[in-house]
Amino acid sequence: MNVVNHKRQLQILTGSQHSALAHAVAERMGAEINPTQLTRFANGEVKCQIKESVRGKDLFVFQTHDKPVNDAILEQAIIIDAAKRASARHITAVCPFFGYARQDRKSLGREPITAKLIVDILAVAGAKRLVSVDLHSGQIQGYFNGPFDHLVSLPVLAEYLKKTFGNDFVIVSPDAGRVKLAERYSSRLGTELAIVHKRRTSTNKSEALDVIGDVKGKHCVLVDDMVDTAGTLCAAAEQLIGHGATKVSAIATHGIFSDPAEQRLRESVIDSIAVTDTLPLPEGFALDKVKVVSIVDLLADAIMAIFAEGSVSALFDGQNHM
Amino acid sequence: MNVVNHKRQLQILTGSQHSALAHAVAERMGAEINPTQLTRFANGEVKCQIKESVRGKDLFVFQTHDKPVNDAILEQAIIIDAAKRASARHITAVCPFFGYARQDRKSLGREPITAKLIVDILAVAGAKRLVSVDLHSGQIQGYFNGPFDHLVSLPVLAEYLKKTFGNDFVIVSPDAGRVKLAERYSSRLGTELAIVHKRRTSTNKSEALDVIGDVKGKHCVLVDDMVDTAGTLCAAAEQLIGHGATKVSAIATHGIFSDPAEQRLRESVIDSIAVTDTLPLPEGFALDKVKVVSIVDLLADAIMAIFAEGSVSALFDGQNHM
Amino acid sequence: MNVVNHKRQLQILTGSQHSALAHAVAERMGAEINPTQLTRFANGEVKCQIKESVRGKDLFVFQTHDKPVNDAILEQAIIIDAAKRASARHITAVCPFFGYARQDRKSLGREPITAKLIVDILAVAGAKRLVSVDLHSGQIQGYFNGPFDHLVSLPVLAEYLKKTFGNDFVIVSPDAGRVKLAERYSSRLGTELAIVHKRRTSTNKSEALDVIGDVKGKHCVLVDDMVDTAGTLCAAAEQLIGHGATKVSAIATHGIFSDPAEQRLRESVIDSIAVTDTLPLPEGFALDKVKVVSIVDLLADAIMAIFAEGSVSALFDGQNHM
Amino acid sequence: MNVVNHKRQLQILTGSQHSALAHAVAERMGAEINPTQLTRFANGEVKCQIKESVRGKDLFVFQTHDKPVNDAILEQAIIIDAAKRASARHITAVCPFFGYARQDRKSLGREPITAKLIVDILAVAGAKRLVSVDLHSGQIQGYFNGPFDHLVSLPVLAEYLKKTFGNDFVIVSPDAGRVKLAERYSSRLGTELAIVHKRRTSTNKSEALDVIGDVKGKHCVLVDDMVDTAGTLCAAAEQLIGHGATKVSAIATHGIFSDPAEQRLRESVIDSIAVTDTLPLPEGFALDKVKVVSIVDLLADAIMAIFAEGSVSALFDGQNHM
Amino acid sequence: MNVVNHKRQLQILTGSQHSALAHAVAERMGAEINPTQLTRFANGEVKCQIKESVRGKDLFVFQTHDKPVNDAILEQAIIIDAAKRASARHITAVCPFFGYARQDRKSLGREPITAKLIVDILAVAGAKRLVSVDLHSGQIQGYFNGPFDHLVSLPVLAEYLKKTFGNDFVIVSPDAGRVKLAERYSSRLGTELAIVHKRRTSTNKSEALDVIGDVKGKHCVLVDDMVDTAGTLCAAAEQLIGHGATKVSAIATHGIFSDPAEQRLRESVIDSIAVTDTLPLPEGFALDKVKVVSIVDLLADAIMAIFAEGSVSALFDGQNHM
Amino acid sequence: MNVVNHKRQLQILTGSQHSALAHAVAERMGAEINPTQLTRFANGEVKCQIKESVRGKDLFVFQTHDKPVNDAILEQAIIIDAAKRASARHITAVCPFFGYARQDRKSLGREPITAKLIVDILAVAGAKRLVSVDLHSGQIQGYFNGPFDHLVSLPVLAEYLKKTFGNDFVIVSPDAGRVKLAERYSSRLGTELAIVHKRRTSTNKSEALDVIGDVKGKHCVLVDDMVDTAGTLCAAAEQLIGHGATKVSAIATHGIFSDPAEQRLRESVIDSIAVTDTLPLPEGFALDKVKVVSIVDLLADAIMAIFAEGSVSALFDGQNHM
Repeated sequence: MNVVNHKRQLQILTGSQHSALAHAVAERMGAEINPTQLTRFANGEVKCQIKESVRGKDLFVFQTHDKPVNDAILEQAIIIDAAKRASARHITAVCPFFGYARQDRKSLGREPITAKLIVDILAVAGAKRLVSVDLHSGQIQGYFNGPFDHLVSLPVLAEYLKKTFGNDFVIVSPDAGRVKLAERYSSRLGTELAIVHKRRTSTNKSEALDVIGDVKGKHCVLVDDMVDTAGTLCAAAEQLIGHGATKVSAIATHGIFSDPAEQRLRESVIDSIAVTDTLPLPEGFALDKVKVVSIVDLLADAIMAIFAEGSVSALFDGQNHM
Repeated sequence: MNVVNHKRQLQILTGSQHSALAHAVAERMGAEINPTQLTRFANGEVKCQIKESVRGKDLFVFQTHDKPVNDAILEQAIIIDAAKRASARHITAVCPFFGYARQDRKSLGREPITAKLIVDILAVAGAKRLVSVDLHSGQIQGYFNGPFDHLVSLPVLAEYLKKTFGNDFVIVSPDAGRVKLAERYSSRLGTELAIVHKRRTSTNKSEALDVIGDVKGKHCVLVDDMVDTAGTLCAAAEQLIGHGATKVSAIATHGIFSDPAEQRLRESVIDSIAVTDTLPLPEGFALDKVKVVSIVDLLADAIMAIFAEGSVSALFDGQNHM
Repeated sequence: MNVVNHKRQLQILTGSQHSALAHAVAERMGAEINPTQLTRFANGEVKCQIKESVRGKDLFVFQTHDKPVNDAILEQAIIIDAAKRASARHITAVCPFFGYARQDRKSLGREPITAKLIVDILAVAGAKRLVSVDLHSGQIQGYFNGPFDHLVSLPVLAEYLKKTFGNDFVIVSPDAGRVKLAERYSSRLGTELAIVHKRRTSTNKSEALDVIGDVKGKHCVLVDDMVDTAGTLCAAAEQLIGHGATKVSAIATHGIFSDPAEQRLRESVIDSIAVTDTLPLPEGFALDKVKVVSIVDLLADAIMAIFAEGSVSALFDGQNHM
Repeated sequence: MNVVNHKRQLQILTGSQHSALAHAVAERMGAEINPTQLTRFANGEVKCQIKESVRGKDLFVFQTHDKPVNDAILEQAIIIDAAKRASARHITAVCPFFGYARQDRKSLGREPITAKLIVDILAVAGAKRLVSVDLHSGQIQGYFNGPFDHLVSLPVLAEYLKKTFGNDFVIVSPDAGRVKLAERYSSRLGTELAIVHKRRTSTNKSEALDVIGDVKGKHCVLVDDMVDTAGTLCAAAEQLIGHGATKVSAIATHGIFSDPAEQRLRESVIDSIAVTDTLPLPEGFALDKVKVVSIVDLLADAIMAIFAEGSVSALFDGQNHM
Repeated sequence: MNVVNHKRQLQILTGSQHSALAHAVAERMGAEINPTQLTRFANGEVKCQIKESVRGKDLFVFQTHDKPVNDAILEQAIIIDAAKRASARHITAVCPFFGYARQDRKSLGREPITAKLIVDILAVAGAKRLVSVDLHSGQIQGYFNGPFDHLVSLPVLAEYLKKTFGNDFVIVSPDAGRVKLAERYSSRLGTELAIVHKRRTSTNKSEALDVIGDVKGKHCVLVDDMVDTAGTLCAAAEQLIGHGATKVSAIATHGIFSDPAEQRLRESVIDSIAVTDTLPLPEGFALDKVKVVSIVDLLADAIMAIFAEGSVSALFDGQNHM
Repeated sequence: MNVVNHKRQLQILTGSQHSALAHAVAERMGAEINPTQLTRFANGEVKCQIKESVRGKDLFVFQTHDKPVNDAILEQAIIIDAAKRASARHITAVCPFFGYARQDRKSLGREPITAKLIVDILAVAGAKRLVSVDLHSGQIQGYFNGPFDHLVSLPVLAEYLKKTFGNDFVIVSPDAGRVKLAERYSSRLGTELAIVHKRRTSTNKSEALDVIGDVKGKHCVLVDDMVDTAGTLCAAAEQLIGHGATKVSAIATHGIFSDPAEQRLRESVIDSIAVTDTLPLPEGFALDKVKVVSIVDLLADAIMAIFAEGSVSALFDGQNHM
């Protein structure tokens, strides 16, 4: 009577942002969602109650850090705190898009490193493992003092490119910081590589964009990890056309699409852009040239591997690192 | 040359919410504010740069946790993180209104204790001391593993009551949880005490309000620590009139005034309500019956005492605890 | 051979104070107690050895923080340290009465928050979960950065009141700080509510007790969380009789009964007082008017639910919070 | 106005045990003591309030861990917690005798390492430096993750021996664990060394004491770090006389003198025993053969060196380690 | 007597690797070095004693993480531990070259993030601030939960390039990961940019290097943060010549020059390579084409600014971030 | 599908030093080793990849801290970091010889306590339990805030002595610090005890060795925990012969045998010396008088008991403490 066989049980919880993704993953896994009541005090304070017992369970708490990002992060931390105090056995924070990932280092003096702060907030709340997709930089995994499972959308998006465009295009990095990612695509797909970068004009002191690599008469595919206001992508596309490209497409993992992304993309020379569903499309966002490629299967397989204690790296042939 | 006299230097920083309060305190102290550039990425991420060197300084980082409260808290934590990484000597987080203070315990199973989480977030960001005014409960000081200076507005508000109404009134607690605060006011002012509380009606199972204590023919003053939607206060006032009170006034430290506070108060039997300036009045909020009593002097004196290493308790004759 | 099915096994350990309670709970659960040898060096240092292997076990280490309270707390921490170093899988500190709970906030400047310190001591020793009954304030749960299961004796004591007195009485809070608890009883039992509180007399500056609410000709039941020297209860009872009450009874969860409680209660107008067995009656304590209501079943059910990973809240219909 | 020269100010606080020592040290330093009100709740809980502001001060909180040792330790931790929350700049716990130091390792399975727990309790309360005299083992310094200043009474006690006995004696270790200490004395004083140790008798399985080294016709001086019940010392002395010693004296740093030390020493062959004043003599303890050698000057010099940032090692010519 | 003016005093300590750099910086600052005795047990264990008192001092503990890197790191941690236990006021670890910086993320499953581990080791030893030059990635600053002052050699090396070559050259990144650094040089110097990167050849599956950007007939300057075995640089240079470059030079901050760097560089088409003195040249290393540019002034200015609490960013016009 | 029976699975990993021991233990247990690829960057940085999934496994990471000891320790920490980030369920660091154990206290001012630092490094890397054999002092267990399983070779070595020499010998401690260990052997084997110790000669100030206890005409067996350069042992043996011993043998747990141990032992009067295989013999070390006694069975039994959650103390009849 005082000895029990230990059965481990998985539960999925979700914050209020993009809960459709959590539900799709749960459905794909045949798992149920432990509902969490999330309301707001009048001044915006999150009020949270998990509806069913989590005692001894392995929890995966979903929240993609969508707009408004501070609400998303605190809500996830609050759910985790509630689960910790209710005796969950193990809590994994699943953040398909990880907020503040761009602030992973100081670009000027007296700046914060907010990506580290967000990791610390999830940890102090009680998360024992993190899961995310296509982090802005791999070093962010090091901010967490425990397992941080990293999923990559490259196989899914490369497959999309091959199916849609064959392989007759040039992969282009839209700035100097994404060349490594572009190299990975070009290497996997066997295509050429080009780069848009900043340079100082000789006559004056201002910076302008330039292209290195051969794009004349070519179909160019820009690759990035996220599209926020789409400024960088649209400017890069402009440059490519200016350098003789015949057509410009784009892919990116995270479609944030903050204002004025919709307008910019509508007016842009970019022909089409594919993103995954780590983030929901903004309400009312309607742009035919935007395609959504789902990573629900990827997330479901990864969480199942984590729970069943299989290898996550094996899902990606060990290529889920950067 | 390698030995220097150690001079300690105070700097005030402020988040973007209610920065007028920080400026007023700084002006009262003759101190300058180290400006902090606070902008937002399109998706709501805070971008922060402190403009002048903080190396070796004693910083007081102001942010009242006004609406939207999650933005307020994370912005303050981010400024603190930036200051910590820029070698500030000591960082004090000044939170005149402390967000989530009502969530200082579980009222149901599987709820978080979010007030503790907020304290932990400020601590992990780098705050080494906290300052707040009229915390919802004194136990919150225990959530921080270091000095947490607590200021009380009772002397200021009691003085206001005496000046405005003399002492011919009854102090009323609007519910069972604030009786201790009401007792403090009644004891200081030498007035009678009454209580509005919930009781189950005998005929059915629902709960209704009732009054204990003698209010018939009296002027009643309701006291609370905060007014959010003003629901509790207005209902209590109704009861008091129903029990024969001739007039109902109210005081509270923190005027959150979330919707529909303005409408409720306008239509309420409450004659007037006084709050302090720990929070700004909501934009466009215009209600003659709301009076604001300033605690700028209180904050300035407390910060000066902290910096100059005098006693904060002495400012309150040791009565700043609960 | 290098793969084993994981069976979880429960063990109960107990400190030397009120070990009868631990044994009663163990018996009720059909569990055995792992004996712990607890002796003292001549100078009072605790010497501890757990007699049987705890490797991989789920331990519940009982110790109610009875007099002398410092010995009780350190002895429990020392047992926990021994268990941690001996590879226990998980350690729960069960503190039916939690010592220093009244010191959960500063009431004057330069005071400690000792309740937090005690939580930290148990945590640093190795406790991963706390269990207690009727904490002096719910915020103490927030002092622990993990699960803190909170049991309430209200169902048991309310049942006792109903069986003993029917429901023809007034529930009375003996001071301003316990009104919320009294409201819970009055709401559950459908009775009236009254309050004893302090007020300053107009003629001089000293404080005196007063009663608000109608008690004339009524049977009054005072409710409190603990009875230490019984000073507050006896003085409140005096007031109630002075205001016309015909009979005064009392209930409280924790019967500390420090000197001079026995004498005071004997001489008091209080007719009878019921407490639970979270604490043993002091040796030689013999007072007919004191009744003990057992919470052994409550503790046994809670620990079984924790071990078997059921819901503790469900045992109380979610009403085990404050 | 917002820049101040930083002056550091020393304050001495003391727990209720052996406060005479703290006062003597303070007087010797010309320092004043910040009085701390220490009372007890009826159930033994310590109630503490520091009477004067400690903000920004360098505190030395004295408490020797005398009987009852658990009260001594918790009281010191509670004072430190109060000082930490009241914004002391730096807190040093001064523990002339460090409680539980004998429990610095496991001697059997499932035992605690309580000396480490005590260090952790002082650290979690807020101590940033520890000071002690003649720790039972030097490794205890490693239990603290910061500076732990270690003072030794050897110079004082060796001087006492030389003045009292010249140098015509044998230094004897009373058991196998103190040989190193005895070697230090014999090396400093240029005397012979002998050892009392346990051996198994060949005929039966029980252990008996034996002596190695030449003591016949000699005056023997037993050295130990502490005398608790005096059992070890008295038995060793018996052995020495049995092996032909003409006279046995003893020295030890810490005179705990728990029952039945007084009786044992009175009846013992030990001629005289000298201890320091790290602990007070037990009340009513009166034994002519016990001499007290003061270390007040040592403590005063060490604390002054710590405060003025001089070298503590220099006070001992670097010989304050083991 | 118990109040002292606080003077802060700087001390420089150095590990045994490249102590010439620490001495040069100290001399440039007019500071003295507190000598540290560093010997080895026969099995390689470091034995350390700091020779003069560090109590209350601000220490800068130099150690560049030269070969053998594990000895370098542990030796620095051990000195820091000694200083912490000896009551240093504040300890800064100065690591001109930061070991394991290349292992700042996982490139395959089940790899460590050793750069984070090294930061944690220095932190657990007692370092409260880190200083380094040209970290492999800026995110490493986020691994430390405190100030991490980052110095850049770009101004010094760019100045060297201008003086030596004018500005008639192309800046080339030797792989996809250093494009951002190359962009910074090209932007500052107003030169063209090219990139050497990997691509899969179409006929078979192996990867080969390729060049994008126009290098024909140009003088190319490869830029990197470190040169270890010089494999990447030499291969890139080969490619550049193959693509028509007329001359290839190189610069890098950290000259590790492990085997077979000397041989490779001697045989390489690289004309000359400049490094700084963050690392010593390997013993016996003699290659005319290697130039050393000193950053002693940079380090001295930075440490002086840190100690005197000026701005470090100001030394670089805010450009010391990445 | 979302509930799985929890099976626990053991895996053994090993660093590159003395991996033969890990393999022997694994073979004895019938366990397989998860291979770890351990290479070095040219500058000595360890590069590590665990080859098979460790998710959810119970890992035992072997590394004896052999020469070069800093490489051994960091390599083990790095493997542990990799395992932690790869979601191992529980990680035990097995350190048959624990490096830096001699540096477990300060012997002079401004020295480190490196044994504590090493424990902290393994803990910060992710070790949750430590296992070692014959620690230099039992207090080192207290440096780790969790289970530290301690194995002793005394039963194995005492058995060896009995088998080899009968029991007609004297056990000798080679210095004052090992008397306790010698006493344990003499008590178990029922033999006499003697001690070699340092004394100051009366004529001059230098220290010389001396012997206490009767060794004339006897076979002496020196016991120590480790043999590094063999200086202490050889000098002690010399003394024993000088005092009339007829033959000197020695035993020690850890045979480090650093230079010039081989030469010293060859030339020494020591007849034979037995060590265990916690460390490998140095390459090319060939000395007939050195015997190796294996503790592979001991380690295998202990790890099996830990994994299967049996008692480790029971393997030693509770005598595995000091």
